Amino acid sequence: MPELRKDPVTGRWVIIATERSRRPSDFLRNPVTIQGGRFCPFCPGNEQKTPPEVLAYRNGSEPNSAGWNLRVVPNKFPALRVEGELDREGEGIYDKMNGIGAHEVIIESPEHDRTLADLPEKRIEELFWAFRDRVLDLKKDRRLRYILLFKNHGETAGASLEHTHSQIIALPVVPKRVQEEIDGARRYFEFKERCIYCDILRQETADGERVILETDHFIAISPYAPRFPFETWIIPRAHGSHYENSATASIQNLGWVTRTVLRKLDRVLERPAYNFVIHTAPTQEGEMTHYHWHIEIIPKLTKVAGFEWGTGFYINPTPPEEAAKFLREVGLV
Amino acid sequence: MPELRKDPVTGRWVIIATERSRRPSDFLRNPVTIQGGRFCPFCPGNEQKTPPEVLAYRNGSEPNSAGWNLRVVPNKFPALRVEGELDREGEGIYDKMNGIGAHEVIIESPEHDRTLADLPEKRIEELFWAFRDRVLDLKKDRRLRYILLFKNHGETAGASLEHTHSQIIALPVVPKRVQEEIDGARRYFEFKERCIYCDILRQETADGERVILETDHFIAISPYAPRFPFETWIIPRAHGSHYENSATASIQNLGWVTRTVLRKLDRVLERPAYNFVIHTAPTQEGEMTHYHWHIEIIPKLTKVAGFEWGTGFYINPTPPEEAAKFLREVGLV
Repeated sequence: MPELRKDPVTGRWVIIATERSRRPSDFLRNPVTIQGGRFCPFCPGNEQKTPPEVLAYRNGSEPNSAGWNLRVVPNKFPALRVEGELDREGEGIYDKMNGIGAHEVIIESPEHDRTLADLPEKRIEELFWAFRDRVLDLKKDRRLRYILLFKNHGETAGASLEHTHSQIIALPVVPKRVQEEIDGARRYFEFKERCIYCDILRQETADGERVILETDHFIAISPYAPRFPFETWIIPRAHGSHYENSATASIQNLGWVTRTVLRKLDRVLERPAYNFVIHTAPTQEGEMTHYHWHIEIIPKLTKVAGFEWGTGFYINPTPPEEAAKFLREVGLV
Repeated sequence: MPELRKDPVTGRWVIIATERSRRPSDFLRNPVTIQGGRFCPFCPGNEQKTPPEVLAYRNGSEPNSAGWNLRVVPNKFPALRVEGELDREGEGIYDKMNGIGAHEVIIESPEHDRTLADLPEKRIEELFWAFRDRVLDLKKDRRLRYILLFKNHGETAGASLEHTHSQIIALPVVPKRVQEEIDGARRYFEFKERCIYCDILRQETADGERVILETDHFIAISPYAPRFPFETWIIPRAHGSHYENSATASIQNLGWVTRTVLRKLDRVLERPAYNFVIHTAPTQEGEMTHYHWHIEIIPKLTKVAGFEWGTGFYINPTPPEEAAKFLREVGLV
């Protein structure tokens, strides 16, 4: 019997289609492979082909030269621009504003032929420090109300360059999906006087069947009502609404946790394309007792996403208990 | 300068990235072609390979035999089932219910080698009558709170069989996206005492720059704040919240309007995959003064959808004024 399950935060119902249940091998595979062989503006030596860096982790070399582990540069084709005024304007019944904001690229490694999951733990940790550094800098601009931190891995997930990178988009508005999460979490808090994500952590730890891995700082789970097969959340154990305020030990641990989760996905789903997003509180708001930052990873499995794309309704052929079991049990080489 | 625009109904902000503006030829093409040559359960003569039909438009032939223009059959691999009780149950902080509902397939034509856009106007009109007939039948089941009417055209849009067909999913819950539209429209009505879609119709007709085509019964537009390039809405001029209560003349006209819009998309975007969804009011609710049924068509253009898929935030590289101009001006052969 298929089951309808409700996401406890947003109230979204999804169908978990247990009768059409699929094993990982049932998905059409489309492994992400690094082709190489073409000019790459993100490779060392080509630093002049990107806009000047806004942040880099280097070993003493000059800015915008080779000799770095990680670079952050403005997007050469930005969706938003920092210059100008934030004019709001009506057009009859419609509303618009200038596209003020920032759009940056984090080049995660000088090596062209490595994916994020292939990097050593310490290097992945650096990505999370870079996220934090950029948020702390960008939030000084009071016009920017939200900072999106995300990664599109693989062409089918939207990556236009294969050299491993993440993106930052700082917006003068709060994205609708984030606002829905915050509103849902607030309603729960008003009712229960507890953070809903803290409650999810408690229940998932006790149940165990949707747990992928646990450390002192994080738990990785297949959520109860996932929209997509093998959707994975990484939730910090310590309550906190703003990613950038995480404890040092927690950010340090995130390198290992992310690496392990990504490598498990690579093993079970044969190097899938994926989207990786940090869900954090709006930039200019103070600490929230009701919201809890976390990471969502969504493998892009071919031919699974068509249905909900148009309808706005989700049918997930893989129960999260099955996905978690595969990911929990898979060994890493 | 890129622009942030707000969808007036749902309040969703999207970036219209005017500086990365693309012409139709800039999108990677992936034309939908009918391959044929394999066994097809939807072809005439194979009626026994589907579950028995629940509706068919025939010229006197026996049920479940050849000699039909259109057949509606239960989905052989349904995401939901009609049998059983609608049990709601908690699992700690989570909520679930049995997957009660209906999942049907409308086989739109006996011809395997024709897409919906290739069918004569009169035959497309029959699809809309079939939608109506099925809604009127399914809404008798009081457990079913929403009926989704949609079409996935092409493999990249989620179609698993190429023989032209649409789908109906009847649900015991209202999908979140529909509920958001209804809530947004209600807020507008409380403020203005007018239907927001009626106001959109008035403004778009007066402006003209986002209009694709107009008839006495419908207007087809590129909406002001579209999530996707060439997203197209078909809105009936007459106010009405429930699709199934549309006037006869209106449903008759929808055959021509849909055919023309789809053929224009085929010409401009080279036979793209697309999703087609009817947005209508929840099944068991009475007529709503604040909601207005309409159709949304979203062409699935390769490599454009990656960004928002994970982030929940939309960047649209094609201003709707440009999309509408291409679609308005393209000639049909």
